[in-house]
Amino acid sequence: MKNKEITIYDIAKALDISPATVSRGLRDHPAINRKTKKKIMDIAKEMGYRSNTFASSLRLKRTNTIGVIVHRLDSYFVAMVLAGMEKVASESGYNLIISQSLESMAKEVANANTMFNSRVDGLMVSLAYDTEDVSHFDPFITKGIPLLFFDRVYKHKNCPTVVIDNFKSAYEITTHLIKQGCKRIAHVTGDLKRNVYADRFEGYKKALEDNGLVYSDELLIINYLNEHIGHNVDAAQQLLNMNPRPDGVFITNDAFAAYCMRELRLAGVAVPQDIAVAGFNNDPISELVDPNLTTINYPSYEMGEVAAKTLINHLKGESNMLLTDSIVLKSELIIRESSLKKGLL
Amino acid sequence: MKNKEITIYDIAKALDISPATVSRGLRDHPAINRKTKKKIMDIAKEMGYRSNTFASSLRLKRTNTIGVIVHRLDSYFVAMVLAGMEKVASESGYNLIISQSLESMAKEVANANTMFNSRVDGLMVSLAYDTEDVSHFDPFITKGIPLLFFDRVYKHKNCPTVVIDNFKSAYEITTHLIKQGCKRIAHVTGDLKRNVYADRFEGYKKALEDNGLVYSDELLIINYLNEHIGHNVDAAQQLLNMNPRPDGVFITNDAFAAYCMRELRLAGVAVPQDIAVAGFNNDPISELVDPNLTTINYPSYEMGEVAAKTLINHLKGESNMLLTDSIVLKSELIIRESSLKKGLL
Repeated sequence: MKNKEITIYDIAKALDISPATVSRGLRDHPAINRKTKKKIMDIAKEMGYRSNTFASSLRLKRTNTIGVIVHRLDSYFVAMVLAGMEKVASESGYNLIISQSLESMAKEVANANTMFNSRVDGLMVSLAYDTEDVSHFDPFITKGIPLLFFDRVYKHKNCPTVVIDNFKSAYEITTHLIKQGCKRIAHVTGDLKRNVYADRFEGYKKALEDNGLVYSDELLIINYLNEHIGHNVDAAQQLLNMNPRPDGVFITNDAFAAYCMRELRLAGVAVPQDIAVAGFNNDPISELVDPNLTTINYPSYEMGEVAAKTLINHLKGESNMLLTDSIVLKSELIIRESSLKKGLL
Repeated sequence: MKNKEITIYDIAKALDISPATVSRGLRDHPAINRKTKKKIMDIAKEMGYRSNTFASSLRLKRTNTIGVIVHRLDSYFVAMVLAGMEKVASESGYNLIISQSLESMAKEVANANTMFNSRVDGLMVSLAYDTEDVSHFDPFITKGIPLLFFDRVYKHKNCPTVVIDNFKSAYEITTHLIKQGCKRIAHVTGDLKRNVYADRFEGYKKALEDNGLVYSDELLIINYLNEHIGHNVDAAQQLLNMNPRPDGVFITNDAFAAYCMRELRLAGVAVPQDIAVAGFNNDPISELVDPNLTTINYPSYEMGEVAAKTLINHLKGESNMLLTDSIVLKSELIIRESSLKKGLL
């Protein structure tokens, strides 16, 4: 009879006490003495009793699960964010249900529906490349299920965001390239529909402008950024084919920058002497490639922690996250050899 | 009234039809005509109706969720496995609940309890470093909830495993180092309690033996392998301090091997001339470091797909996974510059 669910009645019968006593014992009710509680707990464990999460979920309308939708799971950045989220969630007694949109709005819509029907208590989302609007999350908002966006966010009055200052970071790293003597700086980035790429692009352009350099569209390469080789050869080829050739490039992803550096090297281009290279994220790879990669430290693990804490504190009624518009985490420029045309200034 | 749950009665009232018709319409019952079904579906969506997953879960004892416990989330290997699992699960209408043991048996026990109380339909586990036994999974086995192990597995008659042939891969890569002229090959690996490390250690030793080389314990460095810098300096230092110094090293993790190569370089040791280096996994980093890293291709994404498919087919009754002892995926030696002391043989 391994599939029969053990109930408080079975436990009551085994101990020859009332089901009410069992129920109160399992809930640690003060009216039940410690010895009896221990007896109830022990036999409950032995018999394989499972607290009736579902029945109580129905009553409390709570599942103690939080949904997370990410753009893809096979990314070091995403893995770090999830590690931070899981740590906080598990310490607070929440489970994470995790799904990936694979950068497709259609799959993100399906993910959102699944999360809604799974009755998650709250939802954390980083948007797919091609998501045009966020109406697929309306059911959550209508129902009062808290929703927050992190990293790739959408401004919505009911949804706080957890981000870094992408504009500022891009401005700083571009300014650094300019100080190293770069006059023609290319920019390789992802879909400009997403805030992270749009903001970095604006920061890059503003730094050029503030330093008297001219931006032109032929300096911009928009690519499907990911951490897998192959996709990236094209972007490196485009860089090499630019005429005149750039003397610096700001690439908004370290793994991608590392691939490009390899392609440049294979083509006989010296980094940083011919082209200075800067990345983004401070993935471990940035410290292991030769030359080491100048980058922006993106606190991914901390972003996961902060997002989960914000949502869980809201769910517990300890704070109201709807009062928050956005939480901006610190990011910082890390200067390494890949950009040092003239040494540190 | 945003928190009021919409029921079929609300929908029936809004459309002025019977609740039974609504119920059958939502279940796509053939007795209801298409036009009425569409009307029901449209208004259900508009009103924010959620299919009563919980109530039906209570009846069917099904949650359509699968638990996954991994040793840590912040690992490229794990991220790839999860990406494969999520793809298969989401295509089959299952949610993944994911937690990490952070390499601690105590946390793994807590994770298992949470998964049990969350009533997952099945569970997939890769064990923590220090897990001594798997009695914390007994409640699943007793209750007939299917459980499988992947990567870091435990032999249990009720639990199939999804693995690669770690012994064979280690044997092959060690033999390759020997063919390159290495006579004193060190081995850097993780806790030998885990099959992956124990099997690789045995494969390494057997290759030495079959080639007339002597193994001694001082060639073995056991380290807390992970992808984050800092922990690894010690192992590199131990390698450098070995007397006589090894002329080859087989390190069971690419990121770790990449860090060690950097430390060796900083210490003035040439790779592969002074020490040939081989890793494991074929992470992207292995292709980006200089010299490129010889490694074993570990099909992580495919492991996730196969594990999830096996479990889900079992849950759907399409196949009985309990008839399977283990599924061994193909792994292969990839030879690159880091081990080529004398060029390809």
